[in-house]
Amino acid sequence: MAKTELGREIPDKFAKQYGTYAGEFANIKDYQRAAANVHPVKPGDSKLLPSIHDAIVATGLKDGMTISFHHHFREGDYVMNMVMAEIAKMGIKNLSIAPSSISNVHAPLIDYIKQGVITNITSSGLRDKLGAAISSGIMDNPVIIRSHGGRARAIASGDIHIDVAFLGAPSSDEYGNINGTNGKATCGSLGYAKIDAKYADKVVAITDSLMPYPNTPISIPQTDVDYVVQVDAIGDPNGIAKGATRFTKDPKELLIAQYASKVITASKYFKPGFSFQTGTGGASLAVSRYLRQAMLDQDVHASFALGGITNAMVELLEEGLVDKLVDVQDFDHPSAVSLANNAQHYEIDAEMYASPLSKGSMINQLDIAILSALEVDTHFNVNVLTGSDGVIRGASGGHSDTAAACKMSMIIAPLVRGRIPTIVSDVNTIVTPGASVDVVVTELGIAVNPKRQDLIEMFKDLNVPQFTIEELRDKAYAITGTPDKIEYGDKVVALVEYRDGTIIDAVHNV
Amino acid sequence: MAKTELGREIPDKFAKQYGTYAGEFANIKDYQRAAANVHPVKPGDSKLLPSIHDAIVATGLKDGMTISFHHHFREGDYVMNMVMAEIAKMGIKNLSIAPSSISNVHAPLIDYIKQGVITNITSSGLRDKLGAAISSGIMDNPVIIRSHGGRARAIASGDIHIDVAFLGAPSSDEYGNINGTNGKATCGSLGYAKIDAKYADKVVAITDSLMPYPNTPISIPQTDVDYVVQVDAIGDPNGIAKGATRFTKDPKELLIAQYASKVITASKYFKPGFSFQTGTGGASLAVSRYLRQAMLDQDVHASFALGGITNAMVELLEEGLVDKLVDVQDFDHPSAVSLANNAQHYEIDAEMYASPLSKGSMINQLDIAILSALEVDTHFNVNVLTGSDGVIRGASGGHSDTAAACKMSMIIAPLVRGRIPTIVSDVNTIVTPGASVDVVVTELGIAVNPKRQDLIEMFKDLNVPQFTIEELRDKAYAITGTPDKIEYGDKVVALVEYRDGTIIDAVHNV
Repeated sequence: MAKTELGREIPDKFAKQYGTYAGEFANIKDYQRAAANVHPVKPGDSKLLPSIHDAIVATGLKDGMTISFHHHFREGDYVMNMVMAEIAKMGIKNLSIAPSSISNVHAPLIDYIKQGVITNITSSGLRDKLGAAISSGIMDNPVIIRSHGGRARAIASGDIHIDVAFLGAPSSDEYGNINGTNGKATCGSLGYAKIDAKYADKVVAITDSLMPYPNTPISIPQTDVDYVVQVDAIGDPNGIAKGATRFTKDPKELLIAQYASKVITASKYFKPGFSFQTGTGGASLAVSRYLRQAMLDQDVHASFALGGITNAMVELLEEGLVDKLVDVQDFDHPSAVSLANNAQHYEIDAEMYASPLSKGSMINQLDIAILSALEVDTHFNVNVLTGSDGVIRGASGGHSDTAAACKMSMIIAPLVRGRIPTIVSDVNTIVTPGASVDVVVTELGIAVNPKRQDLIEMFKDLNVPQFTIEELRDKAYAITGTPDKIEYGDKVVALVEYRDGTIIDAVHNV
Repeated sequence: MAKTELGREIPDKFAKQYGTYAGEFANIKDYQRAAANVHPVKPGDSKLLPSIHDAIVATGLKDGMTISFHHHFREGDYVMNMVMAEIAKMGIKNLSIAPSSISNVHAPLIDYIKQGVITNITSSGLRDKLGAAISSGIMDNPVIIRSHGGRARAIASGDIHIDVAFLGAPSSDEYGNINGTNGKATCGSLGYAKIDAKYADKVVAITDSLMPYPNTPISIPQTDVDYVVQVDAIGDPNGIAKGATRFTKDPKELLIAQYASKVITASKYFKPGFSFQTGTGGASLAVSRYLRQAMLDQDVHASFALGGITNAMVELLEEGLVDKLVDVQDFDHPSAVSLANNAQHYEIDAEMYASPLSKGSMINQLDIAILSALEVDTHFNVNVLTGSDGVIRGASGGHSDTAAACKMSMIIAPLVRGRIPTIVSDVNTIVTPGASVDVVVTELGIAVNPKRQDLIEMFKDLNVPQFTIEELRDKAYAITGTPDKIEYGDKVVALVEYRDGTIIDAVHNV
């Protein structure tokens, strides 16, 4: 067993293959950018194929290859299940799949794993039945959990070589000019898909809205697309926004949001031209509301808001409180509409969003990130992947990326959820190292990471209760009792890759 | 000596290195796309450097490396001369320069060649004093003339590996987000620069308009830029439009334009949704005017106009006669303004414009291209590079690219220019092979390439005088006399690379 810098044990085999986490920026080195093998398209060649089957044949997909999908349709995605059904029917086996993330709707993957169609998975996360199945140990090879920036890094550096990318395209012309803002199932930004299109050897655009040439705006250009297939439906537009949260009325969430907003406005980062990223949870959206009021009261406008974009951010843009939205993914329909219509709302790809190996990602310029957590421990390590039962049910997302890169990272979370403590002695699974976490905000008060003495000084007169992280943990345990240790098995079912490509934790079967 | 398919002699050494032209699409094969060696930029790292000198030092530029520049400022460019002056001062020698093109304003390059600072050049063309100097034989190594699509191909395939790209940036923020539509010297599209930024190991943005972060719209993203330098001025905005032509009153040019317009409207390609590209010459702009009238009269709107964009095309867009402009370069200020303000005016890079090795460039979807010529011969080969004295004074541009890819390529040219015939038995220098040329239009009438029997049939009732190309040649020679053969020396001063990477002709010293 090898050990990470944070003391987590990683089996030697994987430690040797990936390296082990040794610090936020310890493994950032010059590298040769990967690139596609290209089949040139000549004048007169057609890219349009009659079916997904024909496209699979045309790409030359074979046993053992790696294919990818994007998760912009979230719970409304039809594409991955359609393509995998056809691949399974064709008898292709032993595939690695590298979707940018996996949703509840992708439970059919369980069967393809059992049939040997899929033998490797890398994803931002796993949900619901698939997460439970993986945690029970149905795969021989561990799933590789990658952050959004880490996935972009892995693709750009060649750690993930995509043989064929299957891209759900809300609209495309016959030559493969794609955008996510026109069509029947608009998802807005195609930030994660753009990377797949750029680096994959073969790219298949699957669309239900075939447009006249040239389809514009061009999010993914024809020069990154090999084949185009028209189908009846690529996704359920309602599913895209499923799970997106409205403004909360939960007094606990409102209190967390209020504290978070106070922390932000008391920080030196809150000044004209500041920048921020928020999440999609109830408390997170509530932070935007409180922050809005502070921005109005103090006449402080933001230069940009970044990330997964929600309607709350769109409203700030439209109100003139935020100059620009920079958008790698849209979490609801109004955000997709804004991307289509507002010239100050910009689409970027995942590499520009968060890759630690790029020539500078946008998160490097970010002042404040508001992030969620399933667990935070007394070392400020954060778990957003496994539940209190040890089962995989979350996603790495951009968590470790933004936390590492921004100037002040804030974890907002309730102290306890039902009988489960959020602040614990040791998280089940480390996704984001404590070195990247600056402030933890609960409904009882905040804890500032002792490594940020500058923030402790900055907040010394802040009108929010302040504790050590150990005190918060004790308060949580006082309510829930000290949690029992999870009984894990011996099998590694998932490896959590840090954004730099090293392994930061291993998840065992339960 | 090796011979091309068209009978041109290429010294064995170069024939072996590059291959010789063997047909328009004979050398289009799958390939591994090239990619940059990347130095990651971490949070807190600054890209801003105080001077061009510091940027050169930071890039690690060394003797023997390859550097590049873009030509979007045309005759107004300050950047290449500024950077080369500093490089010369620093004593760096034996550089290859790979600008997308070279203008009259770059005559100082002659000194750097003589000093051994520059020992290799690849460019779309050479003008004026530099062209004359090269043709006189001042370089040991021949200049490699590449078309715009051929250059993009060469960069994408690794034939040109750019160690450092120096990019004049009309506006940039400190992190390298660049566009050409804001700033003091706006050039509009940065289509050629985008490719350099994408593939070069090191990229330096040189700007006179430093913008707040994030500078938008983003034509070249921060993820493609290593360093940013602010200078007083990067270019003279008036120089950008220098040489751009107003509507001609020359009756000869008007007649050519009228005939060209009749050819277009009589062709099967003239129908709703057609597409076209025109040039910048007087006759070319006049074609747009006649075409406009035909489009109005017959209610035929174009889906897109492509290429180097001029105000004539912008007017068609604004009038609703063209749905979209697709823009790799702007030839005048109104075009740059349109790119900034008109949502139907799109910027693309040179690879998407014209690379023969891309997954499908836009010229592959082009119906009609209107192209110029210095000479056309009886094999329909076209010379746009060397004058009647054999001296290099032109540029390959997108000529061979669009001619090869579009559905109907038209060469518009006066039969004679002063005492010099345009239609000749054999062009001095082949840039575009006759196989790519469909119709030649002069003020006396047209000649259709016999390989296009479909067009001959299509135009049999056309009210324009029709001749064989030999008849046009004879009419030209009847005016000018048969031209004397040029007395070339033994030295190869330039190799004309066909868009696919093979050599189509060699230019000797005079």
